[in-house]
Amino acid sequence: MYKNIYTKKFVFFVLTALLSFDVFYAKALAVTEVAPAYWWVGMKNHELQLMVHGNNIGKSKPTIAYPGVTVKEVARTDNPNYLFIYINIAANTRPGKFNIKFAEGADVKNFSYELKARTDKSGALGFNTSDVLYLLTPDRFANGNAANDNWDGVNIDRNNPDLRHGGDLEGVAKHLDYIKDLGVTTVWFNPVQENKMPNGSYHGYAITDFYKIDQRYGSNEAFRDLTKTMHNKGMKVVMDMIFNHCGLAHPWMTDKPAADWINNPTKYVQTNHAKLTAMDPHAAKKEADVLLNGWFVPDMPDLNQRNRHLATYLIQNSIWWIEYARIDGIRQDTYPYPDYAFMARWCKEVQAEYPNFNIVGESWYGKSSETAWWQRNSVLNKTNTQLKTVMDFPLTFTADKGFNKENNENGGESSGLYQIFEVLAQDYLYADPKNILTFLDNHDLGRFNRVEDKDLDRYKQAFAFLLTTRGIPQIYYGTEILMTGTKNEGDGQIRKDFPGGWEGDKKDAFTATGRTDMQNEAFNYLQELLQWRKTSAPVIDGKLIHYAPDNSNVYVYARIKDGKTVLVMLNGSSKDQTLDMDRFTDVTGKHTGGKDVITGKQISIAKTATVPARNQYILELN
Amino acid sequence: MYKNIYTKKFVFFVLTALLSFDVFYAKALAVTEVAPAYWWVGMKNHELQLMVHGNNIGKSKPTIAYPGVTVKEVARTDNPNYLFIYINIAANTRPGKFNIKFAEGADVKNFSYELKARTDKSGALGFNTSDVLYLLTPDRFANGNAANDNWDGVNIDRNNPDLRHGGDLEGVAKHLDYIKDLGVTTVWFNPVQENKMPNGSYHGYAITDFYKIDQRYGSNEAFRDLTKTMHNKGMKVVMDMIFNHCGLAHPWMTDKPAADWINNPTKYVQTNHAKLTAMDPHAAKKEADVLLNGWFVPDMPDLNQRNRHLATYLIQNSIWWIEYARIDGIRQDTYPYPDYAFMARWCKEVQAEYPNFNIVGESWYGKSSETAWWQRNSVLNKTNTQLKTVMDFPLTFTADKGFNKENNENGGESSGLYQIFEVLAQDYLYADPKNILTFLDNHDLGRFNRVEDKDLDRYKQAFAFLLTTRGIPQIYYGTEILMTGTKNEGDGQIRKDFPGGWEGDKKDAFTATGRTDMQNEAFNYLQELLQWRKTSAPVIDGKLIHYAPDNSNVYVYARIKDGKTVLVMLNGSSKDQTLDMDRFTDVTGKHTGGKDVITGKQISIAKTATVPARNQYILELN
Repeated sequence: MYKNIYTKKFVFFVLTALLSFDVFYAKALAVTEVAPAYWWVGMKNHELQLMVHGNNIGKSKPTIAYPGVTVKEVARTDNPNYLFIYINIAANTRPGKFNIKFAEGADVKNFSYELKARTDKSGALGFNTSDVLYLLTPDRFANGNAANDNWDGVNIDRNNPDLRHGGDLEGVAKHLDYIKDLGVTTVWFNPVQENKMPNGSYHGYAITDFYKIDQRYGSNEAFRDLTKTMHNKGMKVVMDMIFNHCGLAHPWMTDKPAADWINNPTKYVQTNHAKLTAMDPHAAKKEADVLLNGWFVPDMPDLNQRNRHLATYLIQNSIWWIEYARIDGIRQDTYPYPDYAFMARWCKEVQAEYPNFNIVGESWYGKSSETAWWQRNSVLNKTNTQLKTVMDFPLTFTADKGFNKENNENGGESSGLYQIFEVLAQDYLYADPKNILTFLDNHDLGRFNRVEDKDLDRYKQAFAFLLTTRGIPQIYYGTEILMTGTKNEGDGQIRKDFPGGWEGDKKDAFTATGRTDMQNEAFNYLQELLQWRKTSAPVIDGKLIHYAPDNSNVYVYARIKDGKTVLVMLNGSSKDQTLDMDRFTDVTGKHTGGKDVITGKQISIAKTATVPARNQYILELN
Repeated sequence: MYKNIYTKKFVFFVLTALLSFDVFYAKALAVTEVAPAYWWVGMKNHELQLMVHGNNIGKSKPTIAYPGVTVKEVARTDNPNYLFIYINIAANTRPGKFNIKFAEGADVKNFSYELKARTDKSGALGFNTSDVLYLLTPDRFANGNAANDNWDGVNIDRNNPDLRHGGDLEGVAKHLDYIKDLGVTTVWFNPVQENKMPNGSYHGYAITDFYKIDQRYGSNEAFRDLTKTMHNKGMKVVMDMIFNHCGLAHPWMTDKPAADWINNPTKYVQTNHAKLTAMDPHAAKKEADVLLNGWFVPDMPDLNQRNRHLATYLIQNSIWWIEYARIDGIRQDTYPYPDYAFMARWCKEVQAEYPNFNIVGESWYGKSSETAWWQRNSVLNKTNTQLKTVMDFPLTFTADKGFNKENNENGGESSGLYQIFEVLAQDYLYADPKNILTFLDNHDLGRFNRVEDKDLDRYKQAFAFLLTTRGIPQIYYGTEILMTGTKNEGDGQIRKDFPGGWEGDKKDAFTATGRTDMQNEAFNYLQELLQWRKTSAPVIDGKLIHYAPDNSNVYVYARIKDGKTVLVMLNGSSKDQTLDMDRFTDVTGKHTGGKDVITGKQISIAKTATVPARNQYILELN
């Protein structure tokens, strides 16, 4: 359609110009990006790494003239397009902007850099046993803004469980009151950082920019605002982070900062998932190497945190997010897969900067001895992991079967409740049993609630347990409305859209009228427990004393704090069970009864107590 | 039949005399027994407790006049018929006899006591990874002497699995060469101390005299001679001991040394078997008390080792048996049930006296973390148990299912072999993984070999494993001839008579001709392995490096010592499996093949190796 207006002369001119530009450009310095984009004065750690990317920038000599700022080290890699500047920011340095001057002979480029004041002192609170985490998959919770649904050639497709569905931060913002009213205190977001991958990578675990919120979720500012709003509502935020790998579409992959930026860069090696090599004294070195250096999946390059520049980059990235968005905690993915020493350094540096902050690592193991090994100050581990909180996968796996009716037909050591009891009895293995995340399911596991459950017996007993035993409970979004999905059906089925999160949804489970009777029963039960839990000092911070289920198959335990006692009695069996209460006098003392938290009824525990079949009491003794 | 010759006068005289005697006797001192009956000079521990039993002896004042011997303390209890004398035996005291003079006013009794010289320096060797223990139930192995079968009103009845069958020490003595030829190095005897119980207590766990071999087995001298004979043959002896309880017919029960000699003396309390209370930080004190102070069964009174006199009595009893019979090790029953502090003291004092000695405790738990807790120097345990060796029940329970065909149809983490691998990977929990007793069954568990096994695949693989992995293996008598018996059938069926052990037995499985073809195949396989094991430094003392079974479900591991490598490959699957040997270069190094210990064939491991279905290689790499 365009008229050909280009003369030969014009074409020649353009080609010459382009050629000259290319030749010139190949030599000229350029500063495309400095990461982090800005920083703050007044941090405890005075050192800052600046990762500079740009044409031939590695050949330049950087200088900074700003009071309090000194260049400690300039490091170059095998890629001339990168330069790492390590600066020192003295304690009394004032906020402001300054030029970083890059010079190679006569070629000089300036880059304006800013050190901001630390104005926001909110958040960074950590999370603890007074909290209950609500894990949500941002793409699947609620779509608050249709305008950001499609981006970078990837459109939403709600019919495909493996593609983007359009959930976003605005969707979460619109339902904050729902979340708060449910009674949880903290939201753990599956990763919100950019996943600019060919298929959109709805789960978020293929990061393509560590410093940027995915455009489909919103912006950095939107995330910061959401966090602030949540803090104002008395809620906390946990961010999901991944250091083991990035997305294959990360710009690093087209211009690697260093040849050793990733592991196995030239030939694909699959990780062997040999997580036991971390602690197994009989492990072969090569097995451990494949665990650490093999790739998780082909589109997630395995980052080499032994490269010290990458290590510092990742640590600063965490600190940047905490300082920028004032998040309260981090959940770190695939904890045993990255470099061990680096992870310990990361925990240590983050916690040095933010002492109240909490980090929970995905310690996916079957045995308590294995998860306990990963916790900070573990006696099992010769070198300290520095990881404050671990995930109680052993309890999850045990609870998954442990509350089933068929596993509680008989009492004694073969019963599901006994197995649960025994997992908790392993707490001598943990350096800090209070900092253990407890959960019945999450985005990687089949949902706890099952299609075949025709009543709420299992559900109610499991949450009565989860919300009264030791640890920091975590609930997965949709659990409160009995969402189901098994691992066999695929991950997408575990991460279904929350009904009502999308305009035009036929059902709106965010409201009581949009829920079925059974959903409301489940929701109300959970809400009752969650709201009460926030007020219960014994449950939040009390000593746990428990009793092995005997042949009656009732699991009895107490939480005790400052003279207040909550007595929990879970009857796993299909018969009413009458217990001789003499066994429990260590915890019941002179109490002869208590008020059941759920029903509000006064229950006698004088001499005997009868717990209905597959039912439970949560008694505030009086 | 007797003629009445007694006149009234005579009767009166007798009655008067008896009456006078009774009155006199009620006042008079008597020394019925001093325990231990004798002792030795030159022990490291210079203190000796003498427990004196006799009428009113507690009212007396004892004195000793013998160079080097001084009375340190005289202790009395609430029972006047007992006296505890604590003497010091100076380092240079000479062996000899002396009188202990007991005086109450004019009433003086003398008791001749002997301190012997320590002439026998044999034995007390301990047992370790160079050994394989052969556990036998003395009543059920072989009857070498029919004259001692019936005693104390209890007759043998071989048709009743719960009564005495007549096996004895002479029976063992007659088959020492059989045991030695099989290839084991050490015999662990189920308890041989007196069980003078109404039903004979064939298992031996209801001791009625801690210082005496049961007459049905022989005499103290016979036991000492057997030990000496075994030492001369290069074999070792492990004695079974029980401190948690004694037999109800123990003389103590009719005249208790002290009111607190046993726990719950007036009202029967059954132990709750709550063994987790030992380590569980959430355990209730009352639960722990019932574990410790409840009785195991009604005819076994629970000893109170917190009574310091009883504690010392039991410790001295062990040392007496070691010194007297020069046994090499002790297996202690029901380890978590007696008083914890006492057990630690016992271990410490025994091992102080005999540094090479080994004690293995019955640490019957399901998890490695639990058994590891009981081992000496465990980081899991704030107060040291001092127990050198623990039993690997977790491995036993896992192996019981782990070698089954049906549990190895699929590879990966669900396979039986993977579960076994994971148990061994828990060795970071143990303070000393070399001192762990490994076994596939024992007298309390269903026999590993099953009636339904129509081939030896499971059997061969299990023993290939047991005899090449880490730890000190233990085999239960009759395993070598495929004896079977399940827990459901009853303990007596697990402890059947060894065929050929009794005169007139139709089969004599002690000889090749008396065994079936399948029995011979099992026997020869085990013998081959056991005899080879004695020569294999890598298996006895080498480093273990192992590899998680992958989808091929082959468990590969190596034992390496001083440049020698034994490579074991267990194929659990029902298909031949070809392995890419590149995975194993950490242990194979430059080796390209090895000689299979069982078949003698040279097997190539260059690039690949193919392990036949449900078969194994044990390769000495060359």
